[in-house]
Amino acid sequence: MATTPPGSPAGSGQQGAHQGAHPHPAPRHPRLDPLADRYAARTHGMKTSEIRALFSVVSRPEVVSLAGGMPAVTALPLDAVGSMIGDLVSGMGAQTLQYGSGQGDPRLRERICDVMALEGITDASPSEVVVTVGSQQGLDLVTRVFVDPGDVILAEAPSYVGALGVFQSAEARVRHVAMDDDGLIPEALEEALVACRAAGDRVKFLYTVPNFHNPAGVTLSEPRREAIMAIAERWDLLIIEDNPYGLLGFDREPMRALRARDSQRVIYLGSFSKTFSPGLRVGWVLAPLAVREKLVLATEAQVLCPPSLTQYAVARYLDTQPWREQIKLFTELYRERRDATLESLAALMPAGTTWTRPDGGFYVWLKLPAGLDAKLMQPRAVGAHVAYVPGIGFYADGSGQEYMRLSYCYPEPDQIREGVRRLSRVVEAELDLHSTFDKVDTGTFRAIRPGSGHDAESMVGPANSDTYEDGR
Amino acid sequence: MATTPPGSPAGSGQQGAHQGAHPHPAPRHPRLDPLADRYAARTHGMKTSEIRALFSVVSRPEVVSLAGGMPAVTALPLDAVGSMIGDLVSGMGAQTLQYGSGQGDPRLRERICDVMALEGITDASPSEVVVTVGSQQGLDLVTRVFVDPGDVILAEAPSYVGALGVFQSAEARVRHVAMDDDGLIPEALEEALVACRAAGDRVKFLYTVPNFHNPAGVTLSEPRREAIMAIAERWDLLIIEDNPYGLLGFDREPMRALRARDSQRVIYLGSFSKTFSPGLRVGWVLAPLAVREKLVLATEAQVLCPPSLTQYAVARYLDTQPWREQIKLFTELYRERRDATLESLAALMPAGTTWTRPDGGFYVWLKLPAGLDAKLMQPRAVGAHVAYVPGIGFYADGSGQEYMRLSYCYPEPDQIREGVRRLSRVVEAELDLHSTFDKVDTGTFRAIRPGSGHDAESMVGPANSDTYEDGR
Repeated sequence: MATTPPGSPAGSGQQGAHQGAHPHPAPRHPRLDPLADRYAARTHGMKTSEIRALFSVVSRPEVVSLAGGMPAVTALPLDAVGSMIGDLVSGMGAQTLQYGSGQGDPRLRERICDVMALEGITDASPSEVVVTVGSQQGLDLVTRVFVDPGDVILAEAPSYVGALGVFQSAEARVRHVAMDDDGLIPEALEEALVACRAAGDRVKFLYTVPNFHNPAGVTLSEPRREAIMAIAERWDLLIIEDNPYGLLGFDREPMRALRARDSQRVIYLGSFSKTFSPGLRVGWVLAPLAVREKLVLATEAQVLCPPSLTQYAVARYLDTQPWREQIKLFTELYRERRDATLESLAALMPAGTTWTRPDGGFYVWLKLPAGLDAKLMQPRAVGAHVAYVPGIGFYADGSGQEYMRLSYCYPEPDQIREGVRRLSRVVEAELDLHSTFDKVDTGTFRAIRPGSGHDAESMVGPANSDTYEDGR
Repeated sequence: MATTPPGSPAGSGQQGAHQGAHPHPAPRHPRLDPLADRYAARTHGMKTSEIRALFSVVSRPEVVSLAGGMPAVTALPLDAVGSMIGDLVSGMGAQTLQYGSGQGDPRLRERICDVMALEGITDASPSEVVVTVGSQQGLDLVTRVFVDPGDVILAEAPSYVGALGVFQSAEARVRHVAMDDDGLIPEALEEALVACRAAGDRVKFLYTVPNFHNPAGVTLSEPRREAIMAIAERWDLLIIEDNPYGLLGFDREPMRALRARDSQRVIYLGSFSKTFSPGLRVGWVLAPLAVREKLVLATEAQVLCPPSLTQYAVARYLDTQPWREQIKLFTELYRERRDATLESLAALMPAGTTWTRPDGGFYVWLKLPAGLDAKLMQPRAVGAHVAYVPGIGFYADGSGQEYMRLSYCYPEPDQIREGVRRLSRVVEAELDLHSTFDKVDTGTFRAIRPGSGHDAESMVGPANSDTYEDGR
């Protein structure tokens, strides 16, 4: 609260603001934030993400960045998109420059249902769709609507860093659930539910990225989809299906969404950031009508309405441009970059390094040889002009030290090969250092050992370690 | 939490999703929301705003809407703005269609500082600015960063409906502070602070719209600005200055912002929605660096980053288009509409009706003759093809029944005159009904009486009642 003024406020009501005569108490730490004791509880837990901490580094031209998840937007037909958007403003300014509805443009919501049909969601109605400022806002809205401080959210280990930021901001507790090359492990999910019940935790939902996972690069297999829906049914578990990459598969048709299997128990988040443009920030939530109504109220309180221009731009793009062919063009480009990444890793990485083999999306999840720490190694990598995201950002509990995320979506194949070459030398140098120090101090670089019981180990447990490609 | 499944979950782990054999408990109210018991505490308080409830009504062509606050965007040079935005996409797609920084485009933040200088804020640095999805998001971010459930926020009576939605979503308690024709009353602010201290309330900030208030239409006078800053200094009170309309004055230069008087105690919210386009959803927060850092973390968790295209569009507009002249054109247009409103009200409204006389912005705040209720009168008004926003939406405590907000920003002057004519007939008819019923039941239409001690009465207290123009 406003701190109690030292004098009698009633008696000094007419004093001017600039007299400087008030015996105003000095802040306890005058050189620190004078408002430090005013913030909400949720604010104290906010911290800079591992990705933003890298921002100044990765924008330097000499650095090959395998860090950011920026789509290859220059592969779009920019002239055509430019005139399309210009015409929307010149010809329909009264709509595109004006406020819209909180739920989003009806025409766009219709086209969103067409897009979702590609993943087997054929029963969605535009009235169940809420347009959001990227699917990040969708996740934030869902979290605000469902989660009180202290509630538990189940999420894959590792999980999308931006989702962990939302959950932290909501003061939720995240319980990670192990995954492997086939995605989330149903038995691990059930174990988590049992443990939460035993602990009396209020589990609000499972948050999952089933396709081309960020950061793990893996995809939930068809049998597991069925198994997880069965668990959800049995436990009356709500699922948040976050699916920005689902249409970006390299080798096959899109998989059937979880939402296609249950319209009441799954809330689906979609995005045009990877299939069209992230700079427009157009995403959506598909939710049962009762939830949709809450989401609209929440988004009205948050942004009033999403931008009209960007919504009209996406709807017009879907109406007039060959967007399916464009997605095919994107995936061919990303497949080439994925290949460059995997080939370089196989050729160059020292023994003991393992990684996932994505068949879509943007990311490879790499595990360093035993004893190395991706975060501690980062300054050396930046010195060698290559950037990645340390794995710890993708765990709510600070684990994941031995992992890193490599993004192949943005750099050209030659840059990727050069980046992996630099990275492999850094890992080798780190291993040399490690073995040198190992002779005198085995504790320093071996804080994390296999079998230490640490969450991320479930990624390389006995059931699946053979499915990770080894570097040699 | 996920409700306890009736069977043994461990024993049924391999069951399919569609067997239908699980003794799953039926929802308690199967035809109602099955997730009703899962929502966060904040969600239960969310309700549809008075403005959205009107949405379907005001979009009917036969209705003259004095309800919405939509700017006259067609007064913009749409062709020039269209080619400008088209060129931004065609020529700079790699930037305008890509992710940007959470804090917002640096070039735009520089230009925002130029805009704020027009209101006397000459010491702002682009590093203290956070670009937001409209100033609505700015207010939401500030509230999330500062407000825990149960905290008290001071706000004018009446106050912006969208702000009340944010505060409700944050589970804050709003304490209204009386205003009159000169804006917020300093003595009332100090009384509120005394009362909060006595009650042990944690006051997080004062939320105020000093210029051309929404909905009241009044502007905080220069002496009161000084008095309020003195109170803030004495009480160590944080002020949120929400200023979307400050450059839209009809008769004089912009007033000096509260933020221009204290850079540490005032967080300033700005917007391009009324000076350029609301459909782009570009607003900003200016805050001390420590707070700015929290706001960036909060916006990253909420939307990752604001849309790039809309930010580039505003920056390019400020760089290349005659935006000051455009604001002058807007204000001339709004002045003409304000005049049409005030002249029609004076000519047509029955005795006992009073209203404010804005010298800028979009709104007139009208008080009905004693005993009438704007919300109860609404169906009759819609039947007569005129719409307004009932006053109760602008009070957190459900008061304000005798008030309505009239917006003159969007309709042409002739429409305004017709709308006021229709409205005056509705009020007259309601008065007739009232006087008829009055003979048999004095309770029904006289729930609100002058001197009932109800918050909104401070608007027409002895100190200021003569400054409200009477209808006759």
